[in-house]
Amino acid sequence: MDDEFVVTPWKVEGKVDYAKLIEHFGTSPIDDELLNRLIKDAGEEHHLLTRRIFFSHRDLDKVLDDWESGKGFFLYTGRGPSGPMHIGHIIPFYFTKWLQDRFKVNVYIQLTDDEKFLEEERRLTLEEARKWARDNALDIAAVGFDPDKTFIFQDTEYIKNMYPLALKVARKINFSWVRAVFGFDMQTNIGMSFYPAIQVVPSLFERKRCLIPCAIDQDPYWRIQRDIAESLGFYKTAAIHSKFLPPLTGPIGKMSASKPESAIYLHEDEKSIRKKIWKAYSGGQPTAELHRKLGGNPEIDVAFQWLYFFFEPDDRKLKKLEEDYRAGKILSGEMKLILTEKVLKFIEEHRARREEAKELLHLYMYDGELAREMWRKVHE
Amino acid sequence: MDDEFVVTPWKVEGKVDYAKLIEHFGTSPIDDELLNRLIKDAGEEHHLLTRRIFFSHRDLDKVLDDWESGKGFFLYTGRGPSGPMHIGHIIPFYFTKWLQDRFKVNVYIQLTDDEKFLEEERRLTLEEARKWARDNALDIAAVGFDPDKTFIFQDTEYIKNMYPLALKVARKINFSWVRAVFGFDMQTNIGMSFYPAIQVVPSLFERKRCLIPCAIDQDPYWRIQRDIAESLGFYKTAAIHSKFLPPLTGPIGKMSASKPESAIYLHEDEKSIRKKIWKAYSGGQPTAELHRKLGGNPEIDVAFQWLYFFFEPDDRKLKKLEEDYRAGKILSGEMKLILTEKVLKFIEEHRARREEAKELLHLYMYDGELAREMWRKVHE
Repeated sequence: MDDEFVVTPWKVEGKVDYAKLIEHFGTSPIDDELLNRLIKDAGEEHHLLTRRIFFSHRDLDKVLDDWESGKGFFLYTGRGPSGPMHIGHIIPFYFTKWLQDRFKVNVYIQLTDDEKFLEEERRLTLEEARKWARDNALDIAAVGFDPDKTFIFQDTEYIKNMYPLALKVARKINFSWVRAVFGFDMQTNIGMSFYPAIQVVPSLFERKRCLIPCAIDQDPYWRIQRDIAESLGFYKTAAIHSKFLPPLTGPIGKMSASKPESAIYLHEDEKSIRKKIWKAYSGGQPTAELHRKLGGNPEIDVAFQWLYFFFEPDDRKLKKLEEDYRAGKILSGEMKLILTEKVLKFIEEHRARREEAKELLHLYMYDGELAREMWRKVHE
Repeated sequence: MDDEFVVTPWKVEGKVDYAKLIEHFGTSPIDDELLNRLIKDAGEEHHLLTRRIFFSHRDLDKVLDDWESGKGFFLYTGRGPSGPMHIGHIIPFYFTKWLQDRFKVNVYIQLTDDEKFLEEERRLTLEEARKWARDNALDIAAVGFDPDKTFIFQDTEYIKNMYPLALKVARKINFSWVRAVFGFDMQTNIGMSFYPAIQVVPSLFERKRCLIPCAIDQDPYWRIQRDIAESLGFYKTAAIHSKFLPPLTGPIGKMSASKPESAIYLHEDEKSIRKKIWKAYSGGQPTAELHRKLGGNPEIDVAFQWLYFFFEPDDRKLKKLEEDYRAGKILSGEMKLILTEKVLKFIEEHRARREEAKELLHLYMYDGELAREMWRKVHE
């Protein structure tokens, strides 16, 4: 990869050039034709698609073939429960829910408590990783998935049902391969080098094509999956990849737990949210006077970028904000206040749904129609 | 290791020099003092001990300290279910049962169906490994362990209860280490390199000292265990190591599924057993006449060696057989017939117990006192 930026499942550094990433990872851009077909099949558009936040894919066209021909498909996504979730973590889940609503398909959501424990540099105890898995599960349940078509599971609990298939996957992957794909070395612990097998398994939960909505940094796992799935009698997985919501601190890298000022957490209080957004990296001029005269740059203004990514779904309103900001009619502070109100409203509503989800979590994890079916099944 | 022989958990080649093995593995010989103490604590002797078939140990003295002081200990052994069991496989289980009877302790027996599937050169399907696990479990149950103090489990079933602890073990072992200990390389699959964590876990099932009766080739696992157990809050395991029952084909290597003529299987019919022993490697002279004159060599006579290892527990009778053979009074064919009758009787009795064990297997695996306790427990 280019030296100017790095994207692996554990690290995103530098200013990401998404066109180069498509080339480097060997994925395909979502072109207009495919976008229109997806929107037509879905019956409505979604701004994460039309704005090319989900910008890249593997075999999305085949997923639509399968759906159009009545074969169907299923969705799989996940979360590494290393701590509290922030807005960047939850957005793909809202998009996944939209896909479920539009296509009426099953969704499998893996909580990788094993992985987060095995990543030594995190220094999480297994108990902490498992506690975060339960905490994060509530935020995911708050998104509002169909309780009878959604299975949320944590690896350390569901392992018994996955282990036989994980062994079959693991037997097809050697150390040399995970070293090349993930950069593992002689010091990597043997749990970590086994882990990719565990992450591949849910993509084989059904004898249908799997579609994985995920940030582009997870793609290395799906490359492995695609190399071995057919030899095990399953479909190569499809994927639809998103860009990273820019950190509040500026358009470099991705939000990170080690820099709490870079992200808004779902549990944060109003005061802290207001303060963080107020301090966010701006595309404006040093003074209001200069800004009125020269205008701001929305390309690097994080407040505008967040509105673009997620918080202002109305394209016309967004366009006006962009034009007014460029023209100097909107100050950076005003842009931040617009975002702040949207974020606070989103967080408030999410939190209310999180409270309600406490009653529903058992359906996603154990008692809903799909969950019950999954606990009865051993994947081989 | 010396080039003349090789001993690893997957391979035993050449004529094994057990004194060198003790030195190479860094274990301790069982000296007279320790032997006498073990026999005293056990309340009786066992010919596998007095004849030094179990010849080496780690921390057996500490196990006896713990037992004498009332702290107690527990036993752990296992079986790689890659096919039908032969006499060489079952002898350590009979010895383990004797230890259980004498010390009234819990026994954990791991069936490593995952390992046998992951060993690619075996070309076993996972379904075959699991089928053999069930088959082998019956032979092990036939040995007559205490159904309320014995837990027989197969990895792919019990994994859920072991996985959290396996992760903790795995996080402490890197690839460099398993490469050095087991000779893994870049082509080793990631399941195989993770597997040592799974074999270590049962040695941590109780907060007491674990004693592992096993063939010396399994010791590399226990070296790893001993390096990490205390940092996880457990005892370093103890072990008591046996020599290999010599193959019928001669005093080199160990019995092997790839050479069926080298072993007697527990399911074999009388005709086949008679034929195999009759063809066994002999320490006799080319003709009966010469044998009468020069005598035979019991050191390399497999029939005598089998009597020595297991089938003639009476030391006086054994001594007479040895002397008469050396003196040419017993022909090789006669020695073979003596062994044949003993083996047939043993197999017949074992098989009757195997039939009865069909009714008991559920106690060892699920419903006995210890089994029920174990299924309720998640090891962390």
